[in-house]
Amino acid sequence: MGGDIFGRELRLISFGESHGPVVGAIVEGAPAGLPLSEEDVQRILDLRRPGQSELVSQRAERDRVEILSGVFNGFTTGAPISMIVRNEDIDSSYYEEISRFPRPGHADYVARLKYSGYNDFRGGGRFSGRLTVSMCMAGAVAMKILEKLGIEVMAYSLEIGGERAEGFTLDDARNYRYMNPVRAPNEESYLRMAAAIERARREGDSLGGIVEAIALNVPPGLGEPIFDTIEGDIAKAMFSIPAVKGVEFGSGFRAARMRGSEHNDPIRVIDGKIRYKKNDHGGAIGGITTGEPIILRVAFKPTPSIAKPQETVDLELLRNVEIKVKGRHDPCVVPRAVVVVESMLAFTIADHIMRSMRGAI
Amino acid sequence: MGGDIFGRELRLISFGESHGPVVGAIVEGAPAGLPLSEEDVQRILDLRRPGQSELVSQRAERDRVEILSGVFNGFTTGAPISMIVRNEDIDSSYYEEISRFPRPGHADYVARLKYSGYNDFRGGGRFSGRLTVSMCMAGAVAMKILEKLGIEVMAYSLEIGGERAEGFTLDDARNYRYMNPVRAPNEESYLRMAAAIERARREGDSLGGIVEAIALNVPPGLGEPIFDTIEGDIAKAMFSIPAVKGVEFGSGFRAARMRGSEHNDPIRVIDGKIRYKKNDHGGAIGGITTGEPIILRVAFKPTPSIAKPQETVDLELLRNVEIKVKGRHDPCVVPRAVVVVESMLAFTIADHIMRSMRGAI
Amino acid sequence: MGGDIFGRELRLISFGESHGPVVGAIVEGAPAGLPLSEEDVQRILDLRRPGQSELVSQRAERDRVEILSGVFNGFTTGAPISMIVRNEDIDSSYYEEISRFPRPGHADYVARLKYSGYNDFRGGGRFSGRLTVSMCMAGAVAMKILEKLGIEVMAYSLEIGGERAEGFTLDDARNYRYMNPVRAPNEESYLRMAAAIERARREGDSLGGIVEAIALNVPPGLGEPIFDTIEGDIAKAMFSIPAVKGVEFGSGFRAARMRGSEHNDPIRVIDGKIRYKKNDHGGAIGGITTGEPIILRVAFKPTPSIAKPQETVDLELLRNVEIKVKGRHDPCVVPRAVVVVESMLAFTIADHIMRSMRGAI
Amino acid sequence: MGGDIFGRELRLISFGESHGPVVGAIVEGAPAGLPLSEEDVQRILDLRRPGQSELVSQRAERDRVEILSGVFNGFTTGAPISMIVRNEDIDSSYYEEISRFPRPGHADYVARLKYSGYNDFRGGGRFSGRLTVSMCMAGAVAMKILEKLGIEVMAYSLEIGGERAEGFTLDDARNYRYMNPVRAPNEESYLRMAAAIERARREGDSLGGIVEAIALNVPPGLGEPIFDTIEGDIAKAMFSIPAVKGVEFGSGFRAARMRGSEHNDPIRVIDGKIRYKKNDHGGAIGGITTGEPIILRVAFKPTPSIAKPQETVDLELLRNVEIKVKGRHDPCVVPRAVVVVESMLAFTIADHIMRSMRGAI
Repeated sequence: MGGDIFGRELRLISFGESHGPVVGAIVEGAPAGLPLSEEDVQRILDLRRPGQSELVSQRAERDRVEILSGVFNGFTTGAPISMIVRNEDIDSSYYEEISRFPRPGHADYVARLKYSGYNDFRGGGRFSGRLTVSMCMAGAVAMKILEKLGIEVMAYSLEIGGERAEGFTLDDARNYRYMNPVRAPNEESYLRMAAAIERARREGDSLGGIVEAIALNVPPGLGEPIFDTIEGDIAKAMFSIPAVKGVEFGSGFRAARMRGSEHNDPIRVIDGKIRYKKNDHGGAIGGITTGEPIILRVAFKPTPSIAKPQETVDLELLRNVEIKVKGRHDPCVVPRAVVVVESMLAFTIADHIMRSMRGAI
Repeated sequence: MGGDIFGRELRLISFGESHGPVVGAIVEGAPAGLPLSEEDVQRILDLRRPGQSELVSQRAERDRVEILSGVFNGFTTGAPISMIVRNEDIDSSYYEEISRFPRPGHADYVARLKYSGYNDFRGGGRFSGRLTVSMCMAGAVAMKILEKLGIEVMAYSLEIGGERAEGFTLDDARNYRYMNPVRAPNEESYLRMAAAIERARREGDSLGGIVEAIALNVPPGLGEPIFDTIEGDIAKAMFSIPAVKGVEFGSGFRAARMRGSEHNDPIRVIDGKIRYKKNDHGGAIGGITTGEPIILRVAFKPTPSIAKPQETVDLELLRNVEIKVKGRHDPCVVPRAVVVVESMLAFTIADHIMRSMRGAI
Repeated sequence: MGGDIFGRELRLISFGESHGPVVGAIVEGAPAGLPLSEEDVQRILDLRRPGQSELVSQRAERDRVEILSGVFNGFTTGAPISMIVRNEDIDSSYYEEISRFPRPGHADYVARLKYSGYNDFRGGGRFSGRLTVSMCMAGAVAMKILEKLGIEVMAYSLEIGGERAEGFTLDDARNYRYMNPVRAPNEESYLRMAAAIERARREGDSLGGIVEAIALNVPPGLGEPIFDTIEGDIAKAMFSIPAVKGVEFGSGFRAARMRGSEHNDPIRVIDGKIRYKKNDHGGAIGGITTGEPIILRVAFKPTPSIAKPQETVDLELLRNVEIKVKGRHDPCVVPRAVVVVESMLAFTIADHIMRSMRGAI
Repeated sequence: MGGDIFGRELRLISFGESHGPVVGAIVEGAPAGLPLSEEDVQRILDLRRPGQSELVSQRAERDRVEILSGVFNGFTTGAPISMIVRNEDIDSSYYEEISRFPRPGHADYVARLKYSGYNDFRGGGRFSGRLTVSMCMAGAVAMKILEKLGIEVMAYSLEIGGERAEGFTLDDARNYRYMNPVRAPNEESYLRMAAAIERARREGDSLGGIVEAIALNVPPGLGEPIFDTIEGDIAKAMFSIPAVKGVEFGSGFRAARMRGSEHNDPIRVIDGKIRYKKNDHGGAIGGITTGEPIILRVAFKPTPSIAKPQETVDLELLRNVEIKVKGRHDPCVVPRAVVVVESMLAFTIADHIMRSMRGAI
């Protein structure tokens, strides 16, 4: 048991279930004096809200955040910041059969095993993508810490269903990603990705994709050798997002085919400052930030819930069956995952900022 | 500061520096009653020892482990198991200039920044690949826990310098990987990889590669939603190994281009047991092990220390210079990393085993 | 910042403020399959509720618990159990001046310093005795774990205002303590304590006292050398209860005046079982439970809020002033603290039970 | 298992056994740039060394510390500081029978139970007072942090065998405590305590006592509500010292008999600064330091090893026996415990200093 707490100095406690009364988050260890309102949190939450287009599921959640503690007169107090979103528009009737006929690609079967059948299986319970709501709420707090230091975090859909974004600038991504429902960094890639998702949806199937995330203006020196590396902590954060299958930094898996002379980033004095000439390292060397942008890519598998019939077992009669998964599902989770990736990236960096305020005496 | 402790129930504390008196490890939280001898640990350590061939560096370390506590009459006692290896054959003269001329691809510059110049920079200090000795020592203890449960952990060089192993079976890998100095899973790939390394070495350059790791007979139910997922904890462990740039599980980044109907692993009753028909999920769904083999791939960048001249800065005069890195270096770290990947994978699984012994009452 | 999480395997996260929307608790790491209802928690909460007599303050809180997650179909699921109590009947008008005129014996001044004035000072905020509500909620869950193992936890007022309970048996304490508003173990001591409290109240003053707590049927072997001793963890839990000034186990401070021949508990075979002849050790030796009852005493200072005028400072004008503390206050916190002591004792033992389920392999 | 790590930002890992090769300590999380030498650590270690007089045991340990990592060029590097002391002059022959005939007042029996007989029982193993060596080593590092901030930590024997020190000043204690083998604060009390110890020794018996400890110039604001109170963390540290039965702060158990009007410390402007008129609170209110001296008292039971015959059981034949404990033992542990109390107090404060460097942004 356990596993619901993330971070060391800044800690996120996730609670709630998909079809229980609430999804919630507590941010513990946040400094006093951050300006924070429900609107600040709502703004982030709204970026993951479905129901905005045909491309995401039609569950009509309003997802209104309530801050229950830790904020006073518009500022954080240093006490735990607890936030909840009430679950509404729940139709659990679809899900009763989950406990008997585990859905391929979902955690239904292992959850039943692990919790001896006591888990709240409705809608996937703790394993539902809905729990990313708590990540976004925490991300909103983390972003307030980053703002103080001028750090910017940004993610976008780099690739969906094999359609890869190309020819975009950082500014394109910054300005356009939340202007389109697939969170593509520019219009051309948006159109291609949207068409691919629509195609998959019509065929009762689903798509995977890749989210790319960048953190700018990160101070050098964050991250700790040997175990609490900035990459290791970010990767752990990313794997807590449902459907993630891989994480890479900088040149990533491509680095495996590079030579040292090609991969090493030359160090230069540029405008009187020490900089790296390029950024194949992705913003961290030896687990420590270099001051260059942190850049990572996160691979998402295709949504496991599809309309097509699938093979599974009847756990009561212990025999093979075929099922069709009911309920409302996104044909691709990547668009909704973008702000979640941003949130968890922001949270992990904020945690390390809190840690690193203790330097050499 | 901090960051030298890994794990939750089974904890690894790493200590020591590349050119200090020792490299050491403490394993805290291990159960009493495990058979453990210095030979058991030495066997693992020897698998990462250089000096065995021309393909790895010529530093003539014997790396003899001493167990200083936690073992009595040949069995673990439940107390912290402390182990050290004395650093021998140290020639720090090469390294004095590191503090002034940071080597590209190394942490020299960020370490100096982070620790206000107080870090032990000799040989890279805490950032040296030599610190993986502590990971192997801890891995040896973890493997004793896995053995009790019949779990097998195995890694091998899947790809080096673009030469990818093919046409091998699990048995090939199990039997052959430590029979050859590049840790390839079969002879054919060994020859190709060795030739590539030799070519790079002669050119004063270096290569990256990919290690594939597998854990067999892992019980279902390990891992915790939402944050302490088995993948997240393994990924964090992998990123603590120097030079790692990416980690993926099962179909990994390839999953981003699959459709749900293709990626989902059908659940079947096979011989009266519930099994997954294939293993694109890589042994874990929803962060929880499924009972299928855990399978992951870890991308390593090329060794940053190369003989070719490189661009860097003189930190004292704050101007651009060109350096040639001295010292003895592996043209490819992947062969030595294989047993380190095995060790950290074993450790992470053992930690989760210790956690999961508390199930439903 | 931080400090709101207690426990290692079973973790209690406290949130909320005295005059904010809620006081809440999350219990993380609880096993799946424990029967738990709101009534179970309410029963414990009601034992600390004021308004039951003239001896405790008149704030008319109903303190109705709502379980927001972690329970499904009447059983715990293994997910975080989040519980809140809405704050009602709040009159913050009394408290506005706290930030300017810190109350002697309260944390008003240090809280303002620590949080740079951003803390929610109303009613003492996080430092209010009201936060013990979260301890009771968590205690209710812990007691369910103890019940499974037949462990009984019991506390009572041993001494109030110098009036010490005498001549009572364990059964007296078990049956009578919640039958009387001062939580005395027998009627005779109740009458003396109640009279003392009434006297202090009429004089605008307050009293301290001692709570004695006992845990029965605790299995031997709980607690960990060297730091996570059972006494150390219980003591830490006790000092988290407001107004606690001292904690002692078994013979406690009296042991300082005993001789070894007198203090050592002889070990005997009694009815074929190994037992200690007496229990001056108080249930733990070397930090590990012995199987004998854990027995401890917790010293509480007198309630700092008194009706009498007191000396303090005007933090704005930085000069000495005299204040009279307004608001409704208990002339003695001990009666309300009894169930809090029980709760935190139960929680700490339950945490160690969760830890100790991993023994020698 | 587990329990060998203390602290949150500054972490002490204890390892080693009484009759194993070493006793060791790692201090993790210490800042870079602290001046630290083996002499600094040796100075603290020497203050707990036996063999200095007839009043403490005659085991002729030299206890020479070796620093194995974390220090470079005379300064801490930010990496783990590992330190060992080799165990010498070990005569384990006395102790073989411990596993069969558990000594009253010792953890022999519960250790055997807890570790299924695999524990290193020689000399008490992990439960030996010898393990306080690791606390002193860590204390030496912590004191370097305190020195930077001008914080002074001081402990002395307040009472031994009922002989209580009286009529001494803070300066007396500061100057005299390490000038006399019982660590009394002045000569008059030294003579009385020494005579009492000598009397007990001649009678084959032992004495308990009370150590009083004070920390001066502690900045206000250390400690965290609700659980990581400064008192709670100090108390936990104290209970990790063998033989401790009680801990109290400020007026302590005496507070239980005081009235609020008497106990509350008036707040005053003194010389333009805000101070408390007296210090019955003992340096912390609401778990947070006030800037007044932290003052605590720690009760020690009499040494359990006495020359007199004692009742115990033969664990193999499961019957009652009488034993005489062999070996060399202090008739009173208090004199040796004084520097251990100082060390753990210093460590706990240093840990909170490291935590509190993150304030309001």
